Amino acid sequence: MSTIAHEIRRGAYADSIVLMQLQSSLAQLEGVDDAGVVMATEVNLELLAASRLLPEALSGVGPDDLLIVVRAESDDAAAAALAEIDRLMSRDAGSLGFSGSGTAAFRPKSLRTALDGSPQARWVLVSVPGRYAAQVAREAIRADRHVFLYSDNVTIDQEVELKREARERGLLVMGPDCGTATIGGVGLGFANRVQPGAIGIVAASGTGLQSVASRIDALGAGISQAIGTGGRDLSQAVAGATTLQALDLLAYDPATRVIVLISKPPAPEVAAGVLAAARATRKPVVVSLSGTAPPLEKLSNLWFAQSLEGAADRAVELLGLQPTASHVSPAQPGDAPKDSPKASPRASNTGFVRGLFSGGTVALEVTQALRFLVAPLASNLGVDGVADASIEASIGHTILDLGADEFTVGRPHPMIDSDLRQRRISQEASDPSTRVILLDLVLGDGAHPNPAGELAQVIRAAVEGPGAGSGARSDAGSCERSGVEVAVVVIGTDKDPQNLDGQVEQLQQAGAAVFRTIGGLVEFVADRFVGAVSPLPSRLELEDFDSISCINVGLEHFHDSLAAQEVGVVHVEWRPPAGGNERLQAILAKMG
Amino acid sequence: MSTIAHEIRRGAYADSIVLMQLQSSLAQLEGVDDAGVVMATEVNLELLAASRLLPEALSGVGPDDLLIVVRAESDDAAAAALAEIDRLMSRDAGSLGFSGSGTAAFRPKSLRTALDGSPQARWVLVSVPGRYAAQVAREAIRADRHVFLYSDNVTIDQEVELKREARERGLLVMGPDCGTATIGGVGLGFANRVQPGAIGIVAASGTGLQSVASRIDALGAGISQAIGTGGRDLSQAVAGATTLQALDLLAYDPATRVIVLISKPPAPEVAAGVLAAARATRKPVVVSLSGTAPPLEKLSNLWFAQSLEGAADRAVELLGLQPTASHVSPAQPGDAPKDSPKASPRASNTGFVRGLFSGGTVALEVTQALRFLVAPLASNLGVDGVADASIEASIGHTILDLGADEFTVGRPHPMIDSDLRQRRISQEASDPSTRVILLDLVLGDGAHPNPAGELAQVIRAAVEGPGAGSGARSDAGSCERSGVEVAVVVIGTDKDPQNLDGQVEQLQQAGAAVFRTIGGLVEFVADRFVGAVSPLPSRLELEDFDSISCINVGLEHFHDSLAAQEVGVVHVEWRPPAGGNERLQAILAKMG
Repeated sequence: MSTIAHEIRRGAYADSIVLMQLQSSLAQLEGVDDAGVVMATEVNLELLAASRLLPEALSGVGPDDLLIVVRAESDDAAAAALAEIDRLMSRDAGSLGFSGSGTAAFRPKSLRTALDGSPQARWVLVSVPGRYAAQVAREAIRADRHVFLYSDNVTIDQEVELKREARERGLLVMGPDCGTATIGGVGLGFANRVQPGAIGIVAASGTGLQSVASRIDALGAGISQAIGTGGRDLSQAVAGATTLQALDLLAYDPATRVIVLISKPPAPEVAAGVLAAARATRKPVVVSLSGTAPPLEKLSNLWFAQSLEGAADRAVELLGLQPTASHVSPAQPGDAPKDSPKASPRASNTGFVRGLFSGGTVALEVTQALRFLVAPLASNLGVDGVADASIEASIGHTILDLGADEFTVGRPHPMIDSDLRQRRISQEASDPSTRVILLDLVLGDGAHPNPAGELAQVIRAAVEGPGAGSGARSDAGSCERSGVEVAVVVIGTDKDPQNLDGQVEQLQQAGAAVFRTIGGLVEFVADRFVGAVSPLPSRLELEDFDSISCINVGLEHFHDSLAAQEVGVVHVEWRPPAGGNERLQAILAKMG
Repeated sequence: MSTIAHEIRRGAYADSIVLMQLQSSLAQLEGVDDAGVVMATEVNLELLAASRLLPEALSGVGPDDLLIVVRAESDDAAAAALAEIDRLMSRDAGSLGFSGSGTAAFRPKSLRTALDGSPQARWVLVSVPGRYAAQVAREAIRADRHVFLYSDNVTIDQEVELKREARERGLLVMGPDCGTATIGGVGLGFANRVQPGAIGIVAASGTGLQSVASRIDALGAGISQAIGTGGRDLSQAVAGATTLQALDLLAYDPATRVIVLISKPPAPEVAAGVLAAARATRKPVVVSLSGTAPPLEKLSNLWFAQSLEGAADRAVELLGLQPTASHVSPAQPGDAPKDSPKASPRASNTGFVRGLFSGGTVALEVTQALRFLVAPLASNLGVDGVADASIEASIGHTILDLGADEFTVGRPHPMIDSDLRQRRISQEASDPSTRVILLDLVLGDGAHPNPAGELAQVIRAAVEGPGAGSGARSDAGSCERSGVEVAVVVIGTDKDPQNLDGQVEQLQQAGAAVFRTIGGLVEFVADRFVGAVSPLPSRLELEDFDSISCINVGLEHFHDSLAAQEVGVVHVEWRPPAGGNERLQAILAKMG
C-alpha cells in the first residue's frame, strides 16, 4: 500500500538539472518508491501520470510552478521525504559530478555585470528557459559578444531578428536549440573531446555534429572548428544565416583544409545559396543532408555523403589528398572561381532550366539532383518537395518525363517518336524565361535509328535563337533575343546500332553540350545556376575563434563543464526577471 | 492563310509506329505545314490543339478511331495530302529504317498458330494496346512461354494475376510497361548492345537499367542477364513477384558474379522481403533505389548506391574483387547463411524493434535505414513514408527521439537526464511484442558523467527478462517470458571525460551489444529481421535464358529490331479481335 504526497512551489525557478538531481535524491530516500520533480507543464503532468506519480485533485498549476511528488511506502515516509527538499537542493546545487576545478569567485547576479566585468569573454552561453532566452541573447549581441544559444522554445521570428542583428555586428549566433559546438578547442554544450586538426564542421544537427566529429577523431584526424547553427537555420525563414557565416569563416580559416556541412533536409530555396557558398570556399566540402537522397556524388569541390559515417570517412580521405599548406583565399564577390575551371562565369539566378527527357529514371535522377540546386523546381515525377509541373507550359525550373503515361497514350514512346519532344523543345526555346534545355538521348536496339538526327535541327534553332538565319539579329541589335543553351546526356554503348560517336558529333555540331553521365549534366546546370560566389561575407574575426573565454547564463552544469575543460568562464547567477511574475515583467519591460 | 483538313477512320487499327511514320511522311509533302496522325484519345486531342492541328467541329471520335489531320497552305494541298494516306501507309509498313535482315516467311495471323508452329520460341514479346495485352500475355503463359510485356495500361489486378500464374508454371513475366531487357545476349524492347559479362541486373526501371548497363559496358565489364520487372513490381500489390524470381535466377546462374538491383522507391512492406532475397543470393548485390535516401552504405553482401552511375561503378569495382570461379549455390530455405558469419540464425519476422534515442540525428539515420528493412515502422521524426509514433506506447517497429520537444519541455535533455529513458526501456521490455531495444549513448563534455552507469541496471533487467533474479524462471519453465536484446551505439572519443572503454564495458557487462557506428547498429537489426533466406524459389530454367528465340505480338518494329540482332523471331500479324468492336468482342468472349 503506497501513498502519494506532493508540494507545489509557485513561481519557483531552478534550473532543470537541479530538479533532476533533486528527483534522483528523493527517490533514493528510505521508504520512497519513486519521485518526480518537474515544472508543471502539460507534458510533464502526463509523464508523471505514466509513472503513477500524478497527485489526485491537482489543479491550478502551470508551467511556472515547481511540482514535487513522492510515492512512498507510508504517509510518514512521504512527509519525511518532502521535508528534506531544501536540504537536498542546497547540497547538490547543480553539480552533476564533474570536477569543476576553476569555480571562480566572480559570480555576478546579472549578465550586464558579467559583460562589463569580463571584456575578454567574447562568448556568451545562454541556457535559460526559452521564453527569456531571446532577451538574454540580444543583450549579449548588443554588447558585441558571440552567442551559443542552447535554449529551445525561441520563436523563429526571434531567431531571424537575433541573427540579423548579429550579422550586422560581425557576430555569430549558434542556435537556438544548439546542442553542441567546439570553438578554439573548447566544447560548448554537449561536445566530444576531439584532437585539434584540419577539418571544420558546420552543422544544423547536434548529434550529427557529434557523430561526425567523434568518428573523425577515431580515424586519426582532428577538428579545427565545429560550429552548430541550430536546427532551423536552413529553414526558409532563417535562410541559412549562421551557416553562411560559418562557411565563410572556415573558408578564410587557414587551419581548416576540409569542411563538413551537416543538415537535416534544407528548404530547397535555401539549399542552393548554401551550396553556392560551399563552392565559394574553394575547399573540399563534404555535404551530408540526413534523411534525403543526396543530389549526386560530387559537384566540383562538393562531395555528397549518404550517411554521417560516410561524411566523416570522406572528409578524412579528402584531407589525406589535400596539400598541407592550403592558404588559398576563398572567392570574393564578383570573383571568377579559379580552381574549378569548368565553372561558368555566367553563373547567376536568371532564367530557368527546362528538362525534356525520354527516360523516366534519368528524369528522376536529374530532378532529385536539382532539387537542392535550383528553385522553384517542378516536375511530373512525383518527387517529394518538388511541385507538380503543368503539362502544357513550363513555369520556373521544370523537368518533364515525356515518356510518362500522360504523354504516351496512343503514341509511341519518345525513344522512338521524337515528334512531341521536338515540338516541346521549340516551345521552351521560344519562352524568354528559358536559359538551359536538358535532354537525354537513349541509343540501342529498339530505339530510333538516328535520334540525334531527329533532334539536331530543332536543337540548332534553339541554340541560335529566333534571330538567326533571318538576318534580323544584326539589324535589331541587343533587343533581339539570343538562343538558349542545350545539354544532352547520351546513354548508349559503342556497340549500339546508331554509332555512338556519330550521334555525339551530330549533337555537338548542332550546338549542344554532350555528356556521358547524369552527373555531368547536373554539373553543367550547377555551373550556370549555383554560382561559386558567397553572397555576403561574414565579417567574423578569426581570432575570436582561437582561444575562447565565456560567460555562462543558465544551466550551472555548463559552467562546470567549461571549468573542467580549464576554460575561463564566468557564471551569471541568473533568475527570471521579477521572480518569474509575468505581469511584473511586462511592467518592467515598459519602464526599461 | 492556312487550312486544316482531316479524315477519321473509325475502328482502324495500326501500330503506333506506323502512325508516327505516316504523320512524318504527310508533313513532308509539298504545301503541307504540319500533320497529326493519332488515335483520338483525349490527350492526343489536346496535343493536336497545342500544335494548332485540332479540326473545328470534331465530335463523336474516341480512342479506337484513327484521326488524320493536315494543316496546309491551301485547300488543294490539304486534299492532295489526305489522298496520299493509303499509298504512304503501305510504303512505310512499320519499318523504321533498321535493316531487318531475317524477315521470315512465317507470319501467322494469330498467336495460337505462332505458339504451335514455334515450339523452340520460349519467349513472347507483347506490345499490343494495353486493353488487349493481358489476354495475349495469358495465352502465352498458358502455352508455357516467358513473357516480355512492353504494353502499358495493364491493370494492377491483371499484373498480379499474370505473375501468379506464371510463377506457378516456372515462368517469368517482365512488365507490364517493361521497356528493356537483355536475355541471353539479346536486347528486348529498347536495349543497349553490351558485351557479355558477369554482372546481372534486375530493374523496375527501364532507363535505370539502360544507364547502368551502358556504363558497365563503358567501364569494360559486361552483362550476364538484365531483367526488367515493370515499374510496379515492388508495389504493395505485386509484392516483388518478378524481382524475387529474377534474384533467385541470378543467384543460381553461374555466369553472374555480381548483381545490380534497381528500383524507384519500393513499398516498405515489400522492400524487406526483396532485400532478404538479395542477401540470400550470397553474391554481392548493389542496390540503387532512385529518389530515396539509401538506408545505409553496406549491409553484409548488399551495397547501397546513391545514383545509377554510382551503382555501375560499384558493381564493376566489386566484380574486380570477386574470385572468377564463383559457383556457390545460394541459400536454401531454412539454410543458415554460411558466408555472412554475423547473420543470426534467429532471423525472422516476429517481434519488433524499439529504438529509444537521445540524439535526434542518430534516431533519424536509424529510422531512414530501417525504413526499407522492417515494417510497419513508426517514429516521431517526421520521415516520409514512416508513420507517426504514439508517444505513450509503441506499436510495431518504433524509433523515438527522446530529445524531441514533446519529451523535453521543462526537463533536461536525455543526454543529461536518463530518467525518462530508463522508464521507457522498462516499459518496452515488459511489452511482449518487443524483441530488440536500440539505444544511443553520447559521451563528451556536457553529457552525463556516467551515462552507461545510469542505464546498466535497466538494460540488465531488460536482457534477463522478468523471470530473472526471482528464481521464477526455472520453476515456470517455458511459459516464462525471456528477455529482449539490447544494442547500443556509443558516440564519443577516447579523450572524452567519461572514459570510452569503461562505458562500453559497463554496457557489455549489462548484456548489451555495443557498436561504434550507426551502420553496425542497423546491421544488428537486419541480421535479426531481414533473414537471408529466399522465401520462394523461382523454379526458372536457366537454359531458357541462354540463347533465346521469340514470338513478337504487337509493334512490328520490335520484330525488326530482333531480326537485326540475328535472333530467331516470328511476327504475329495481330489485329484487335472483332476488328476492335467492343460489343462484338464481348460476345466472342462469352462464346469462347
